[in-house]
Amino acid sequence: MDGRPIAVFDSGLGGLTAVSALIGLYPNENLVYFGDTGRVPYGTRSRRTILRFSAQAARFLMTFDPKALVVACGTAGTAAMEAFDCGVPSVGVVEPSVHKAAAVTRSGRVGLLATPASVRTGAYSECMRKTDPLVTLTERDGRLLVPLVEAGRVGPGDRVAALLVEEYCVPFREAGIDTLILGCTHYPLLTGLFAAALPGVTLINAGAEAAGALRGLMERAEPGGSGSLRFFVSDDAEGFSEQAAMFLQREVAEMAEGVDIEDFLL
Amino acid sequence: MDGRPIAVFDSGLGGLTAVSALIGLYPNENLVYFGDTGRVPYGTRSRRTILRFSAQAARFLMTFDPKALVVACGTAGTAAMEAFDCGVPSVGVVEPSVHKAAAVTRSGRVGLLATPASVRTGAYSECMRKTDPLVTLTERDGRLLVPLVEAGRVGPGDRVAALLVEEYCVPFREAGIDTLILGCTHYPLLTGLFAAALPGVTLINAGAEAAGALRGLMERAEPGGSGSLRFFVSDDAEGFSEQAAMFLQREVAEMAEGVDIEDFLL
Repeated sequence: MDGRPIAVFDSGLGGLTAVSALIGLYPNENLVYFGDTGRVPYGTRSRRTILRFSAQAARFLMTFDPKALVVACGTAGTAAMEAFDCGVPSVGVVEPSVHKAAAVTRSGRVGLLATPASVRTGAYSECMRKTDPLVTLTERDGRLLVPLVEAGRVGPGDRVAALLVEEYCVPFREAGIDTLILGCTHYPLLTGLFAAALPGVTLINAGAEAAGALRGLMERAEPGGSGSLRFFVSDDAEGFSEQAAMFLQREVAEMAEGVDIEDFLL
Repeated sequence: MDGRPIAVFDSGLGGLTAVSALIGLYPNENLVYFGDTGRVPYGTRSRRTILRFSAQAARFLMTFDPKALVVACGTAGTAAMEAFDCGVPSVGVVEPSVHKAAAVTRSGRVGLLATPASVRTGAYSECMRKTDPLVTLTERDGRLLVPLVEAGRVGPGDRVAALLVEEYCVPFREAGIDTLILGCTHYPLLTGLFAAALPGVTLINAGAEAAGALRGLMERAEPGGSGSLRFFVSDDAEGFSEQAAMFLQREVAEMAEGVDIEDFLL
Protein backbone atom coordinates (compact mmCIF):
# COMPACT_ATOMS: atom_id res chain seq x y z
CA MET A 1 0.00 0.00 0.00
CA ASP A 2 1.26 3.45 -0.89
CA GLY A 3 -1.04 6.02 0.70
CA ARG A 4 0.93 9.02 -0.55
CA PRO A 5 -1.41 11.40 -2.37
CA ILE A 6 -1.62 12.50 -5.98
CA ALA A 7 -1.00 16.26 -5.97
CA VAL A 8 -2.92 18.48 -8.38
CA PHE A 9 -2.11 22.09 -9.18
CA ASP A 10 -4.01 24.86 -10.89
CA SER A 11 -3.84 28.67 -10.92
CA GLY A 12 -7.43 28.68 -9.67
CA LEU A 13 -10.32 26.28 -9.74
CA GLY A 14 -10.13 25.05 -13.36
CA GLY A 15 -7.89 22.15 -12.34
CA LEU A 16 -10.87 20.69 -10.51
CA THR A 17 -11.96 19.41 -13.92
CA ALA A 18 -8.84 17.19 -13.74
CA VAL A 19 -9.70 16.22 -10.14
CA SER A 20 -13.11 15.15 -11.39
CA ALA A 21 -11.45 12.83 -13.93
CA LEU A 22 -8.95 11.54 -11.32
CA ILE A 23 -11.71 10.61 -8.89
CA GLY A 24 -13.37 8.62 -11.65
CA LEU A 25 -10.15 6.83 -12.61
CA TYR A 26 -8.63 6.29 -9.16
CA PRO A 27 -11.39 6.48 -6.57
CA ASN A 28 -9.21 5.02 -3.79
CA GLU A 29 -6.25 7.32 -4.19
CA ASN A 30 -5.77 10.28 -1.87
CA LEU A 31 -5.76 13.65 -3.64
CA VAL A 32 -4.31 17.00 -2.58
CA TYR A 33 -5.32 20.03 -4.63
CA PHE A 34 -3.81 23.50 -4.58
CA GLY A 35 -5.53 26.37 -6.41
CA ASP A 36 -3.72 29.72 -6.38
CA THR A 37 -6.98 31.65 -6.07
CA GLY A 38 -5.20 34.62 -4.49
CA ARG A 39 -3.32 35.24 -7.76
CA VAL A 40 -5.51 33.76 -10.49
CA PRO A 41 -5.45 34.23 -13.51
CA TYR A 42 -1.97 33.26 -14.65
CA GLY A 43 -2.68 33.34 -18.39
CA THR A 44 -2.36 37.10 -18.82
CA ARG A 45 0.94 37.37 -16.91
CA SER A 46 4.56 37.21 -18.01
CA ARG A 47 6.55 33.98 -18.10
CA ARG A 48 8.78 35.21 -15.27
CA THR A 49 5.82 35.75 -12.96
CA ILE A 50 4.22 32.44 -13.93
CA LEU A 51 7.54 30.67 -13.17
CA ARG A 52 7.80 32.29 -9.73
CA PHE A 53 4.21 31.49 -8.77
CA SER A 54 4.52 27.92 -10.11
CA ALA A 55 7.73 27.27 -8.17
CA GLN A 56 6.03 28.35 -4.95
CA ALA A 57 3.08 26.06 -5.69
CA ALA A 58 5.42 23.13 -6.40
CA ARG A 59 7.29 23.75 -3.18
CA PHE A 60 4.06 23.77 -1.22
CA LEU A 61 2.74 20.57 -2.82
CA MET A 62 6.02 18.76 -2.19
CA THR A 63 5.39 19.11 1.56
CA PHE A 64 2.75 16.34 1.09
CA ASP A 65 5.34 13.88 -0.32
CA PRO A 66 3.10 13.06 -3.30
CA LYS A 67 3.49 9.93 -5.42
CA ALA A 68 2.63 11.93 -8.55
CA LEU A 69 1.93 15.48 -9.61
CA VAL A 70 -0.69 16.64 -12.11
CA VAL A 71 -0.10 20.16 -13.41
CA ALA A 72 -3.72 20.81 -14.30
CA CYS A 73 -3.07 24.40 -15.35
CA GLY A 74 -2.56 24.97 -19.06
CA THR A 75 -0.59 28.16 -18.46
CA ALA A 76 1.83 26.66 -15.92
CA GLY A 77 2.11 23.52 -18.05
CA THR A 78 3.23 25.48 -21.10
CA ALA A 79 5.15 28.41 -19.59
CA ALA A 80 6.62 26.89 -16.41
CA MET A 81 6.58 23.09 -16.52
CA GLU A 82 10.21 23.02 -15.34
CA ALA A 83 9.09 24.56 -12.04
CA PHE A 84 7.42 21.22 -11.23
CA ASP A 85 10.57 19.19 -11.85
CA CYS A 86 10.90 18.08 -8.21
CA GLY A 87 11.87 14.42 -8.52
CA VAL A 88 8.23 13.32 -8.48
CA PRO A 89 6.64 11.87 -11.63
CA SER A 90 4.57 14.64 -13.17
CA VAL A 91 2.18 15.11 -16.06
CA GLY A 92 1.04 18.32 -17.70
CA VAL A 93 -1.69 19.10 -20.19
CA VAL A 94 0.25 19.67 -23.41
CA GLU A 95 1.43 16.21 -24.50
CA PRO A 96 -1.68 14.27 -23.46
CA SER A 97 -4.01 16.69 -25.28
CA VAL A 98 -1.87 16.91 -28.39
CA HIS A 99 -1.53 13.11 -28.61
CA LYS A 100 -5.27 12.71 -28.22
CA ALA A 101 -6.01 15.38 -30.83
CA ALA A 102 -3.57 13.85 -33.31
CA ALA A 103 -5.21 10.45 -32.77
CA VAL A 104 -8.80 11.56 -33.29
CA THR A 105 -8.55 14.15 -36.08
CA ARG A 106 -9.55 12.86 -39.48
CA SER A 107 -9.04 16.05 -41.47
CA GLY A 108 -5.66 16.82 -39.92
CA ARG A 109 -6.94 20.27 -38.97
CA VAL A 110 -6.87 20.83 -35.23
CA GLY A 111 -7.61 23.96 -33.19
CA LEU A 112 -6.11 25.10 -29.91
CA LEU A 113 -7.80 27.55 -27.57
CA ALA A 114 -5.62 28.47 -24.58
CA THR A 115 -4.53 31.45 -22.50
CA PRO A 116 -2.40 34.24 -24.03
CA ALA A 117 0.66 33.01 -22.09
CA SER A 118 0.17 29.43 -23.31
CA VAL A 119 -0.26 30.40 -26.95
CA ARG A 120 2.78 32.71 -26.72
CA THR A 121 5.09 29.85 -25.68
CA GLY A 122 4.33 27.84 -28.81
CA ALA A 123 4.43 24.69 -26.64
CA TYR A 124 1.36 23.14 -28.24
CA SER A 125 2.48 23.74 -31.82
CA GLU A 126 5.98 22.44 -31.07
CA CYS A 127 4.51 19.31 -29.51
CA MET A 128 2.19 18.81 -32.48
CA ARG A 129 5.09 19.19 -34.93
CA LYS A 130 6.90 16.38 -33.10
CA THR A 131 3.77 14.24 -32.75
CA ASP A 132 2.42 14.55 -36.30
CA PRO A 133 3.94 17.17 -38.61
CA LEU A 134 1.08 16.71 -41.07
CA VAL A 135 -1.49 18.10 -38.66
CA THR A 136 -2.19 21.83 -38.99
CA LEU A 137 -2.74 23.57 -35.65
CA THR A 138 -4.80 26.79 -35.60
CA GLU A 139 -4.14 28.67 -32.35
CA ARG A 140 -6.13 31.38 -30.65
CA ASP A 141 -6.16 32.82 -27.16
CA GLY A 142 -9.35 32.94 -25.12
CA ARG A 143 -8.18 35.69 -22.82
CA LEU A 144 -11.46 36.59 -21.12
CA LEU A 145 -12.74 33.06 -20.53
CA VAL A 146 -10.97 32.40 -17.19
CA PRO A 147 -12.55 35.39 -15.40
CA LEU A 148 -15.86 34.49 -17.03
CA VAL A 149 -15.75 30.88 -15.80
CA GLU A 150 -14.48 31.83 -12.32
CA ALA A 151 -17.51 34.15 -12.16
CA GLY A 152 -19.73 31.14 -12.80
CA ARG A 153 -21.04 32.46 -16.11
CA VAL A 154 -21.11 29.15 -17.93
CA GLY A 155 -24.79 28.56 -18.64
CA PRO A 156 -26.15 28.25 -22.19
CA GLY A 157 -28.36 31.27 -21.56
CA ASP A 158 -25.47 33.59 -20.70
CA ARG A 159 -25.34 36.03 -23.60
CA VAL A 160 -21.87 37.36 -22.77
CA ALA A 161 -20.43 33.84 -22.55
CA ALA A 162 -22.10 32.86 -25.82
CA LEU A 163 -20.83 35.98 -27.60
CA LEU A 164 -17.25 35.44 -26.39
CA VAL A 165 -17.21 31.74 -27.31
CA GLU A 166 -18.64 32.63 -30.72
CA GLU A 167 -15.93 35.27 -31.23
CA TYR A 168 -13.12 32.95 -30.19
CA CYS A 169 -14.40 30.19 -32.51
CA VAL A 170 -14.34 32.29 -35.71
CA PRO A 171 -10.77 31.32 -36.73
CA PHE A 172 -11.49 27.66 -36.01
CA ARG A 173 -14.54 27.68 -38.26
CA GLU A 174 -12.56 29.45 -40.97
CA ALA A 175 -9.78 26.84 -40.70
CA GLY A 176 -12.29 23.99 -40.94
CA ILE A 177 -11.01 22.12 -37.89
CA ASP A 178 -12.60 18.85 -36.79
CA THR A 179 -10.93 18.74 -33.35
CA LEU A 180 -10.46 21.47 -30.74
CA ILE A 181 -8.10 21.27 -27.78
CA LEU A 182 -9.54 23.19 -24.81
CA GLY A 183 -6.03 23.93 -23.58
CA CYS A 184 -7.01 25.65 -20.34
CA THR A 185 -8.69 23.60 -17.64
CA HIS A 186 -11.34 26.27 -17.13
CA TYR A 187 -12.74 25.92 -20.64
CA PRO A 188 -14.52 22.53 -20.32
CA LEU A 189 -17.11 24.28 -18.15
CA LEU A 190 -18.20 25.97 -21.39
CA THR A 191 -18.48 22.71 -23.35
CA GLY A 192 -22.15 23.32 -24.18
CA LEU A 193 -21.37 26.67 -25.79
CA PHE A 194 -18.39 25.30 -27.72
CA ALA A 195 -20.45 22.39 -29.00
CA ALA A 196 -23.09 24.85 -30.20
CA ALA A 197 -20.53 27.14 -31.85
CA LEU A 198 -18.61 24.30 -33.53
CA PRO A 199 -21.09 21.51 -34.36
CA GLY A 200 -19.44 18.19 -35.19
CA VAL A 201 -16.07 19.22 -33.77
CA THR A 202 -14.49 16.87 -31.19
CA LEU A 203 -13.59 18.75 -28.00
CA ILE A 204 -10.47 17.65 -26.11
CA ASN A 205 -10.54 18.35 -22.35
CA ALA A 206 -6.95 19.09 -21.34
CA GLY A 207 -7.52 18.41 -17.65
CA ALA A 208 -9.11 15.04 -18.26
CA GLU A 209 -6.32 14.08 -20.67
CA ALA A 210 -3.70 15.03 -18.08
CA ALA A 211 -5.46 12.82 -15.54
CA GLY A 212 -5.59 9.99 -18.06
CA ALA A 213 -1.87 10.37 -18.75
CA LEU A 214 -1.17 9.10 -15.23
CA ARG A 215 -2.35 5.65 -16.27
CA GLY A 216 1.06 4.13 -17.09
CA LEU A 217 2.53 5.51 -13.93
CA MET A 218 -0.35 4.31 -11.76
CA GLU A 219 -0.19 0.81 -13.26
CA ARG A 220 3.44 0.56 -12.23
CA ALA A 221 2.94 2.22 -8.83
CA GLU A 222 1.63 0.62 -5.71
CA PRO A 223 -2.00 1.64 -5.23
CA GLY A 224 -3.26 2.91 -1.93
CA GLY A 225 -5.13 5.55 -0.05
CA SER A 226 -8.61 5.93 1.28
CA GLY A 227 -10.02 8.20 -1.40
CA SER A 228 -9.46 11.27 0.75
CA LEU A 229 -9.62 14.75 -0.76
CA ARG A 230 -7.86 17.85 0.54
CA PHE A 231 -8.25 21.26 -1.04
CA PHE A 232 -5.95 24.22 -0.46
CA VAL A 233 -6.40 27.74 -1.80
CA SER A 234 -4.27 30.89 -1.44
CA ASP A 235 -7.23 33.27 -1.08
CA ASP A 236 -10.05 33.00 1.41
CA ALA A 237 -11.34 29.43 1.67
CA GLU A 238 -14.86 30.62 2.35
CA GLY A 239 -17.25 30.06 -0.51
CA PHE A 240 -14.96 27.41 -1.99
CA SER A 241 -17.48 24.54 -1.71
CA GLU A 242 -20.06 26.36 -3.77
CA GLN A 243 -17.64 27.25 -6.56
CA ALA A 244 -15.96 23.84 -6.47
CA ALA A 245 -19.32 22.10 -6.91
CA MET A 246 -19.64 23.82 -10.29
CA PHE A 247 -16.25 22.50 -11.47
CA LEU A 248 -16.61 19.01 -9.99
CA GLN A 249 -20.27 18.75 -10.95
CA ARG A 250 -21.10 17.18 -7.61
CA GLU A 251 -21.55 18.38 -4.05
CA VAL A 252 -18.35 19.17 -2.18
CA ALA A 253 -18.47 18.32 1.51
CA GLU A 254 -14.76 19.00 2.11
CA MET A 255 -13.76 22.44 3.37
CA ALA A 256 -10.85 24.15 1.68
CA GLU A 257 -7.86 25.18 3.77
CA GLY A 258 -6.03 28.46 3.29
CA VAL A 259 -2.31 28.68 2.59
CA ASP A 260 -0.01 31.72 2.56
CA ILE A 261 1.64 30.71 -0.69
CA GLU A 262 4.08 33.64 -0.71
CA ASP A 263 5.77 32.07 2.31
CA PHE A 264 6.96 29.20 0.11
CA LEU A 265 9.91 31.22 -1.07
CA LEU A 266 12.52 29.89 -3.42
CA MET B 1 10.86 73.62 -2.79
CA ASP B 2 9.73 70.13 -1.85
CA GLY B 3 10.69 67.72 -4.62
CA ARG B 4 9.32 64.65 -2.88
CA PRO B 5 6.93 62.80 -5.21
CA ILE B 6 3.22 62.16 -5.04
CA ALA B 7 2.84 58.37 -4.87
CA VAL B 8 -0.05 56.69 -6.67
CA PHE B 9 -1.18 53.12 -6.19
CA ASP B 10 -3.47 50.82 -8.13
CA SER B 11 -3.95 47.05 -8.40
CA GLY B 12 -3.18 47.35 -12.11
CA LEU B 13 -3.29 50.11 -14.68
CA GLY B 14 -6.66 51.68 -13.85
CA GLY B 15 -5.00 54.13 -11.47
CA LEU B 16 -3.39 55.76 -14.47
CA THR B 17 -6.73 57.54 -14.93
CA ALA B 18 -5.88 59.31 -11.66
CA VAL B 19 -2.33 59.98 -12.87
CA SER B 20 -3.83 61.62 -15.93
CA ALA B 21 -5.83 63.98 -13.67
CA LEU B 22 -2.81 64.64 -11.43
CA ILE B 23 -0.63 65.64 -14.38
CA GLY B 24 -3.30 68.13 -15.41
CA LEU B 25 -3.62 69.58 -11.90
CA TYR B 26 0.03 69.52 -10.81
CA PRO B 27 2.23 69.41 -13.90
CA ASN B 28 5.39 70.26 -11.96
CA GLU B 29 5.06 67.65 -9.24
CA ASN B 30 7.04 64.42 -9.42
CA LEU B 31 4.88 61.29 -9.57
CA VAL B 32 5.68 57.68 -8.68
CA TYR B 33 3.15 55.06 -9.73
CA PHE B 34 2.95 51.44 -8.66
CA GLY B 35 0.57 49.03 -10.42
CA ASP B 36 0.40 45.49 -9.02
CA THR B 37 0.05 43.98 -12.49
CA GLY B 38 1.44 40.63 -11.29
CA ARG B 39 -1.61 40.15 -9.05
CA VAL B 40 -4.38 42.22 -10.67
CA PRO B 41 -7.40 42.07 -10.27
CA TYR B 42 -7.99 42.70 -6.55
CA GLY B 43 -11.75 43.14 -6.75
CA THR B 44 -12.62 39.43 -6.81
CA ARG B 45 -10.37 38.53 -3.86
CA SER B 46 -10.99 38.36 -0.12
CA ARG B 47 -10.43 41.29 2.22
CA ARG B 48 -7.53 39.47 3.89
CA THR B 49 -5.68 39.06 0.59
CA ILE B 50 -6.41 42.65 -0.48
CA LEU B 51 -5.04 43.88 2.86
CA ARG B 52 -1.82 41.87 2.48
CA PHE B 53 -1.21 43.01 -1.09
CA SER B 54 -2.03 46.63 -0.19
CA ALA B 55 0.34 46.65 2.77
CA GLN B 56 3.17 45.43 0.53
CA ALA B 57 2.36 48.16 -2.01
CA ALA B 58 2.32 50.82 0.73
CA ARG B 59 5.64 49.61 2.06
CA PHE B 60 7.18 49.78 -1.40
CA LEU B 61 5.84 53.29 -2.12
CA MET B 62 7.09 54.59 1.25
CA THR B 63 10.66 53.90 0.06
CA PHE B 64 10.23 57.01 -2.15
CA ASP B 65 9.45 59.25 0.86
CA PRO B 66 6.36 60.69 -0.85
CA LYS B 67 4.71 63.96 0.19
CA ALA B 68 1.27 62.44 -0.45
CA LEU B 69 -0.30 59.15 -1.41
CA VAL B 70 -3.22 58.63 -3.78
CA VAL B 71 -4.88 55.23 -3.42
CA ALA B 72 -6.27 55.15 -6.93
CA CYS B 73 -7.69 51.65 -6.56
CA GLY B 74 -11.34 51.44 -5.62
CA THR B 75 -10.92 47.98 -4.12
CA ALA B 76 -7.93 48.85 -1.91
CA GLY B 77 -9.59 52.16 -0.99
CA THR B 78 -12.71 50.41 0.31
CA ALA B 79 -11.34 47.12 1.66
CA ALA B 80 -7.86 48.06 2.84
CA MET B 81 -7.49 51.85 3.24
CA GLU B 82 -5.87 51.31 6.67
CA ALA B 83 -2.95 49.57 4.95
CA PHE B 84 -1.96 52.97 3.58
CA ASP B 85 -1.92 54.64 6.97
CA CYS B 86 1.83 55.28 6.94
CA GLY B 87 2.12 58.80 8.36
CA VAL B 88 1.87 60.35 4.89
CA PRO B 89 -1.26 62.33 3.92
CA SER B 90 -3.36 60.05 1.78
CA VAL B 91 -6.56 60.20 -0.25
CA GLY B 92 -8.72 57.38 -1.51
CA VAL B 93 -11.60 57.23 -3.94
CA VAL B 94 -14.62 56.78 -1.65
CA GLU B 95 -15.11 60.14 0.05
CA PRO B 96 -14.23 62.35 -2.93
CA SER B 97 -16.59 60.48 -5.26
CA VAL B 98 -19.43 60.32 -2.74
CA HIS B 99 -19.12 64.04 -1.96
CA LYS B 100 -19.14 64.87 -5.65
CA ALA B 101 -22.15 62.64 -6.32
CA ALA B 102 -24.10 64.11 -3.40
CA ALA B 103 -23.33 67.61 -4.70
CA VAL B 104 -24.41 67.02 -8.30
CA THR B 105 -27.46 64.75 -7.97
CA ARG B 106 -30.76 66.53 -8.31
CA SER B 107 -33.07 63.55 -7.93
CA GLY B 108 -31.24 62.17 -4.89
CA ARG B 109 -30.90 58.83 -6.66
CA VAL B 110 -27.26 57.86 -7.20
CA GLY B 111 -25.74 54.64 -8.55
CA LEU B 112 -22.47 52.97 -7.64
CA LEU B 113 -20.68 50.51 -9.91
CA ALA B 114 -17.60 48.99 -8.28
CA THR B 115 -15.79 45.68 -7.82
CA PRO B 116 -17.39 42.84 -5.82
CA ALA B 117 -14.95 43.43 -2.94
CA SER B 118 -15.76 47.17 -2.85
CA VAL B 119 -19.52 46.67 -2.88
CA ARG B 120 -19.21 43.98 -0.18
CA THR B 121 -17.54 46.38 2.27
CA GLY B 122 -20.46 48.80 2.18
CA ALA B 123 -17.92 51.64 2.34
CA TYR B 124 -19.68 53.76 -0.29
CA SER B 125 -23.14 53.40 1.25
CA GLU B 126 -21.80 54.16 4.72
CA CYS B 127 -20.05 57.25 3.41
CA MET B 128 -23.19 58.38 1.59
CA ARG B 129 -25.31 57.93 4.75
CA LYS B 130 -22.91 60.24 6.58
CA THR B 131 -22.70 62.72 3.72
CA ASP B 132 -26.38 62.96 2.82
CA PRO B 133 -28.81 60.46 4.33
CA LEU B 134 -31.52 61.56 1.92
CA VAL B 135 -29.64 60.25 -1.09
CA THR B 136 -30.52 56.67 -2.16
CA LEU B 137 -27.53 54.67 -3.37
CA THR B 138 -28.12 51.77 -5.77
CA GLU B 139 -25.07 49.47 -5.77
CA ARG B 140 -24.01 46.86 -8.28
CA ASP B 141 -20.74 45.07 -8.94
CA GLY B 142 -19.15 45.12 -12.37
CA ARG B 143 -17.10 42.00 -11.84
CA LEU B 144 -15.94 41.34 -15.39
CA LEU B 145 -15.06 44.92 -16.34
CA VAL B 146 -11.48 44.97 -14.98
CA PRO B 147 -10.28 42.02 -17.11
CA LEU B 148 -12.19 43.53 -20.05
CA VAL B 149 -10.50 46.92 -19.71
CA GLU B 150 -7.04 45.45 -19.03
CA ALA B 151 -7.54 43.53 -22.31
CA GLY B 152 -8.07 46.87 -24.06
CA ARG B 153 -11.64 46.08 -25.05
CA VAL B 154 -13.02 49.55 -24.49
CA GLY B 155 -14.11 50.69 -27.95
CA PRO B 156 -17.72 51.57 -28.76
CA GLY B 157 -17.74 48.81 -31.38
CA ASP B 158 -16.85 46.06 -28.91
CA ARG B 159 -20.01 43.95 -28.66
CA VAL B 160 -18.93 42.09 -25.51
CA ALA B 161 -18.09 45.35 -23.73
CA ALA B 162 -21.39 46.90 -24.81
CA LEU B 163 -23.38 43.87 -23.66
CA LEU B 164 -21.67 43.80 -20.25
CA VAL B 165 -22.12 47.54 -19.67
CA GLU B 166 -25.75 47.24 -20.72
CA GLU B 167 -26.27 44.34 -18.27
CA TYR B 168 -24.61 46.16 -15.38
CA CYS B 169 -26.69 49.28 -16.02
CA VAL B 170 -30.10 47.59 -15.75
CA PRO B 171 -30.55 48.18 -11.98
CA PHE B 172 -29.46 51.81 -12.39
CA ARG B 173 -32.04 52.43 -15.06
CA GLU B 174 -34.70 50.73 -12.96
CA ALA B 175 -33.75 52.92 -9.97
CA GLY B 176 -33.95 56.08 -12.08
CA ILE B 177 -30.54 57.41 -11.04
CA ASP B 178 -29.24 60.71 -12.40
CA THR B 179 -25.64 60.24 -11.20
CA LEU B 180 -23.37 57.18 -11.40
CA ILE B 181 -20.13 56.76 -9.46
CA LEU B 182 -17.64 54.73 -11.49
CA GLY B 183 -16.08 53.41 -8.30
CA CYS B 184 -13.25 51.47 -9.89
CA THR B 185 -10.52 53.41 -11.68
CA HIS B 186 -10.68 51.05 -14.67
CA TYR B 187 -14.25 51.96 -15.53
CA PRO B 188 -13.75 55.51 -16.94
CA LEU B 189 -12.14 53.86 -19.98
CA LEU B 190 -15.66 52.69 -20.82
CA THR B 191 -17.22 56.16 -20.46
CA GLY B 192 -18.56 56.13 -24.01
CA LEU B 193 -20.47 52.91 -23.41
CA PHE B 194 -21.84 54.10 -20.05
CA ALA B 195 -22.99 57.36 -21.58
CA ALA B 196 -24.82 55.41 -24.29
CA ALA B 197 -26.40 53.01 -21.79
CA LEU B 198 -27.46 55.76 -19.36
CA PRO B 199 -28.22 58.91 -21.37
CA GLY B 200 -28.41 62.08 -19.28
CA VAL B 201 -26.75 60.48 -16.27
CA THR B 202 -23.71 62.29 -14.80
CA LEU B 203 -20.70 59.97 -14.56
CA ILE B 204 -18.31 60.43 -11.62
CA ASN B 205 -14.73 59.34 -12.28
CA ALA B 206 -13.40 58.03 -8.95
CA GLY B 207 -9.73 58.36 -9.95
CA ALA B 208 -10.10 61.97 -11.05
CA GLU B 209 -12.03 62.82 -7.86
CA ALA B 210 -9.26 61.26 -5.74
CA ALA B 211 -6.69 63.39 -7.57
CA GLY B 212 -8.84 66.46 -7.03
CA ALA B 213 -9.11 65.69 -3.32
CA LEU B 214 -5.40 66.47 -2.98
CA ARG B 215 -6.14 70.16 -3.58
CA GLY B 216 -6.33 71.27 0.05
CA LEU B 217 -3.20 69.38 0.91
CA MET B 218 -1.28 70.72 -2.07
CA GLU B 219 -2.30 74.30 -1.31
CA ARG B 220 -0.81 73.97 2.15
CA ALA B 221 2.25 72.01 1.02
CA GLU B 222 5.39 73.40 -0.50
CA PRO B 223 5.27 72.81 -4.25
CA GLY B 224 8.22 71.37 -6.08
CA GLY B 225 9.51 68.82 -8.50
CA SER B 226 10.34 68.74 -12.15
CA GLY B 227 7.25 66.97 -13.44
CA SER B 228 9.06 63.62 -13.53
CA LEU B 229 7.11 60.39 -13.89
CA ARG B 230 8.22 56.97 -12.68
CA PHE B 231 6.17 53.83 -13.24
CA PHE B 232 6.64 50.55 -11.39
CA VAL B 233 4.82 47.27 -12.05
CA SER B 234 5.03 43.86 -10.37
CA ASP B 235 4.74 41.86 -13.61
CA ASP B 236 6.87 42.20 -16.70
CA ALA B 237 7.42 45.87 -17.58
CA GLU B 238 7.53 45.07 -21.27
CA GLY B 239 4.47 46.24 -23.17
CA PHE B 240 3.64 48.73 -20.42
CA SER B 241 3.97 51.85 -22.59
CA GLU B 242 1.41 50.63 -25.08
CA GLN B 243 -1.16 49.74 -22.42
CA ALA B 244 -0.45 52.87 -20.40
CA ALA B 245 -1.06 55.06 -23.44
CA MET B 246 -4.65 53.79 -23.49
CA PHE B 247 -5.23 54.79 -19.85
CA LEU B 248 -3.36 58.10 -20.01
CA GLN B 249 -4.72 58.96 -23.45
CA ARG B 250 -1.33 60.23 -24.52
CA GLU B 251 1.97 58.71 -25.60
CA VAL B 252 4.08 57.31 -22.79
CA ALA B 253 7.80 57.75 -23.29
CA GLU B 254 8.76 56.52 -19.83
CA MET B 255 9.70 52.89 -19.40
CA ALA B 256 8.16 51.01 -16.50
CA GLU B 257 10.45 49.39 -13.96
CA GLY B 258 9.81 45.96 -12.46
CA VAL B 259 9.53 45.36 -8.72
CA ASP B 260 9.40 42.05 -6.81
CA ILE B 261 6.53 43.20 -4.63
CA GLU B 262 6.43 40.00 -2.55
CA ASP B 263 9.80 40.99 -1.12
CA PHE B 264 8.15 43.92 0.67
CA LEU B 265 7.09 41.69 3.53
CA LEU B 266 5.30 42.94 6.57
